[in-house]
Amino acid sequence: MILYVVGIGPGDEKYLSAEARAAIADSAVIAGYTLYLDLISGLTAGKECFSTPMRQEKERCAFALDKAASGKRTALVCSGDAGVYGMAALCLELSPRYPAVEIAVIPGITAALSGSALLGSPLSNDFAVISLSDLLTPWKIIEKRLNAAAAGGFVICLYNPSSKKRAAYLSRTCEIILRSRRGETVCGIARNIGRGGEDCRVLSLSELKNTELDMFTTVFIGNDETTLINGKMVTRRGYELAAETE
Amino acid sequence: MILYVVGIGPGDEKYLSAEARAAIADSAVIAGYTLYLDLISGLTAGKECFSTPMRQEKERCAFALDKAASGKRTALVCSGDAGVYGMAALCLELSPRYPAVEIAVIPGITAALSGSALLGSPLSNDFAVISLSDLLTPWKIIEKRLNAAAAGGFVICLYNPSSKKRAAYLSRTCEIILRSRRGETVCGIARNIGRGGEDCRVLSLSELKNTELDMFTTVFIGNDETTLINGKMVTRRGYELAAETE
Repeated sequence: MILYVVGIGPGDEKYLSAEARAAIADSAVIAGYTLYLDLISGLTAGKECFSTPMRQEKERCAFALDKAASGKRTALVCSGDAGVYGMAALCLELSPRYPAVEIAVIPGITAALSGSALLGSPLSNDFAVISLSDLLTPWKIIEKRLNAAAAGGFVICLYNPSSKKRAAYLSRTCEIILRSRRGETVCGIARNIGRGGEDCRVLSLSELKNTELDMFTTVFIGNDETTLINGKMVTRRGYELAAETE
Repeated sequence: MILYVVGIGPGDEKYLSAEARAAIADSAVIAGYTLYLDLISGLTAGKECFSTPMRQEKERCAFALDKAASGKRTALVCSGDAGVYGMAALCLELSPRYPAVEIAVIPGITAALSGSALLGSPLSNDFAVISLSDLLTPWKIIEKRLNAAAAGGFVICLYNPSSKKRAAYLSRTCEIILRSRRGETVCGIARNIGRGGEDCRVLSLSELKNTELDMFTTVFIGNDETTLINGKMVTRRGYELAAETE
């Protein structure tokens, strides 16, 4: 008995790996957040689809594990990667209740990668990925991580940068980063990656502080090595200094 | 005139996105590190292939840009993602010399994601990605970032954890992390992901300190939320506390 936890990438089918496509094709039951099931509707014809609204991850994972335990090959789809803020961890946490079910995690292109590709190459040196959602992580811990990432000189990628309830979090975040980085620091935002209305732009950290975003946006805050080249956000790796091993 | 900078994922063709496959199919010239060209040899039949040994990134990028500028559709392939420690930044840095060439960055599944999927779900909360290679980044900066990532409570993913010249770097890294994390902290290593000899295992931070690795290995160091469930490395997200927005 198998449950595939599948990262489908940002949206469009073109981002799916062959492995993810095969796992969905191999499954009789497909579970996931409504929007993500819509994004891959071309792959789910004739399959039993189970969609849940937002904020029902636990139900979604339990349903998928129940289906798999009942003997139906099942795929639980996540946007981006299956692990990065995805459902893989929750399924594995529930797995001891389903000893007969094997959980296969299928990686996908998370927004940090797809957003970077749109903007240029902001993540070409050490980086930190931080979610601004305080539903699972208290704000004081998020703030501690923002301070640490800024102190470490990391390029910073922000998930869940804003929502109606958290409208002020992005500006608070920028204020923290501005203590150690210049207002001219090159930043970038990518929205609706791989979906209708896809959009990205570069802006300064000062401008970002006063920008309103939605939850479908991924934010990139450059470090001292990040620069603008032909309109692209690029973090230099120092090839002027030396060649590198791969 | 176009140059595709393509992330092919960890190795096996199954990790390629449809977009990456299409970019390679659309190209007359394929450039890349010898090993990576071998991994996708099934996709390059009849194409002009140009492979360079390690440590010749600049030559590789200049060659690919020259080919594209000459009017031949060209793809420069990178293992993992095109941006994360990949060639995209270097191509974009050289791009002002090639005003007629459009550079299209195609994201791929980087080792942080493919390695996580093998181990379970270590990156399901905020994380930092750090390369231990000091060929481009001085060790004192790497050390500063390791200290910051540890202080911030990030799960830490290490690229280029070791090489003949840098055999001691991993143990030095573990010593830094051990100042703020228990020796029992759950860690994981993934080697030759998506290639022959693929292998992964979980171990404690104390054990990791005394482990010898090669440059084909990716390392994951858990935080206080990381635990072992049925042999898998899992970083809890706190779903016990609340549901989350996606």
